[in-house]
Amino acid sequence: MKELFIKYLNENLPYIKSFHPFFNEALQAMLKAGGKHFRAQLLLGVVECKAPQLVSNALGAALALEFIHTYSLIHDDLPAMDNADFRRGTPTLHKNYDETTAILVGDALNTEAFLLLSNLNLKEKIKINLIRTLAYNAGINGMIIGQAIDCYFEDKKLNLDELKFLHIHKTAKLIAASLKMGCEICELDKKESEKIYDIGLKLGLIFQINDDIIDATMSEEQSGKPANHDTHKNSFVNLLGLQEAINCKNDLIQNCKNDLIDLDEKISKMIENLMIQYL
Amino acid sequence: MKELFIKYLNENLPYIKSFHPFFNEALQAMLKAGGKHFRAQLLLGVVECKAPQLVSNALGAALALEFIHTYSLIHDDLPAMDNADFRRGTPTLHKNYDETTAILVGDALNTEAFLLLSNLNLKEKIKINLIRTLAYNAGINGMIIGQAIDCYFEDKKLNLDELKFLHIHKTAKLIAASLKMGCEICELDKKESEKIYDIGLKLGLIFQINDDIIDATMSEEQSGKPANHDTHKNSFVNLLGLQEAINCKNDLIQNCKNDLIDLDEKISKMIENLMIQYL
Repeated sequence: MKELFIKYLNENLPYIKSFHPFFNEALQAMLKAGGKHFRAQLLLGVVECKAPQLVSNALGAALALEFIHTYSLIHDDLPAMDNADFRRGTPTLHKNYDETTAILVGDALNTEAFLLLSNLNLKEKIKINLIRTLAYNAGINGMIIGQAIDCYFEDKKLNLDELKFLHIHKTAKLIAASLKMGCEICELDKKESEKIYDIGLKLGLIFQINDDIIDATMSEEQSGKPANHDTHKNSFVNLLGLQEAINCKNDLIQNCKNDLIDLDEKISKMIENLMIQYL
Repeated sequence: MKELFIKYLNENLPYIKSFHPFFNEALQAMLKAGGKHFRAQLLLGVVECKAPQLVSNALGAALALEFIHTYSLIHDDLPAMDNADFRRGTPTLHKNYDETTAILVGDALNTEAFLLLSNLNLKEKIKINLIRTLAYNAGINGMIIGQAIDCYFEDKKLNLDELKFLHIHKTAKLIAASLKMGCEICELDKKESEKIYDIGLKLGLIFQINDDIIDATMSEEQSGKPANHDTHKNSFVNLLGLQEAINCKNDLIQNCKNDLIDLDEKISKMIENLMIQYL
């Protein structure tokens, strides 16, 4: 599924004909640079389980998720936020080009995600659901407020509840949305879809704790981005200590596995496989 | 129609419950600060002419346009772009709060526009058309590439064709989209809708030339933003000189009025009234 998505991504990179000397190159750079494509795999994984005949129609929805995730990384790396020099093993856009370009490429990918969804070869009702789910979870009620809190409280310590609020919004909601969008494409019933969304929130939190652990323990080469960069940030490792963060992650994984027992067997297996691979 | 829209705007400002001390305030600040609401009026004007029973359902679409326009101003004003201190007679967001907040509020309004459209009380088919039209004209094939060219060529002189490309993309496409979205809500036939879109492109170009003239001739108090700020920019006044820019504007107005003769009489009258008021 990952290979299929990467092929689709590379054949559907955004492009605009103009006399700007490098905007297209910048627009495509971070999308081409790799990444785990975790969100895309979640969406496509659900579709493969429940409506495999729709996988080819769903690739554009997975790409829309990748656009949103990539725009968020590009803006997150800006000097006014994390001021990061490397991402996905390559210089960040504002380093390689300039800040203006990085801001505008992020803006473009945000908007383009919704253009992609509107053009999918799926029922109109499904497309509206996908757009609503993506915009809600990537917007002020999701990713944005998480990122705003992360930046504002950078040198101010949060308590555990606040830290969870931060990361549920900044990271987990888009991951949960990825699963939900898969459910929407397959027209699963609402109750099932909400149950899967809730598992996605836990999965997203595990993903973030894991990211914090990687940041604290891996070298730059291993992770493809600056190591130990987040010491002044509200991370699970900084708040709980490394061992307690690892325990917290393991508890959440167990909790998540318990939830998976109640789910459709195929979807449950798919999520477990991705957990083994990435978490 | 403008009063109705402003009332709706103030009753539907974006809001999120969180412990961030000022994000909501920042999110709402530039929306509350005024502006001409030209784009909203174009959309609602068309609906009032052709399907007045749908005006109340269309207010959210006009608000989505206002979100996109306002996000573009917030990002445009950032230090990496125009580095402006004032907008709509009030300090810009990065001045009043910080750069992080300004970037994230812009991002939020961009995404929120599509959430608004997905939630409208209109047929799904219409909503998909609105989302496609807005995303296309505000995205890389529209506003974004215009803004990228504007910034990159700031101290490099463009020729007249390139300047037109810049401003058709940066300004005119979103104005044309406003009219087209009105047509889509009223389900006008495609040919009529494309004709109105093309007039919108001309209208948008007049709007930009007019803005350049205002910038060159009005005081800060009159225009609500720093005066004579664009001397190093590719503006019509800088390229053609003030008198030639005024002539160019008048020619385009005449050209636009000729096109209006072929249009539906009500829509034609509505556009002419807005031209008298704002151009």
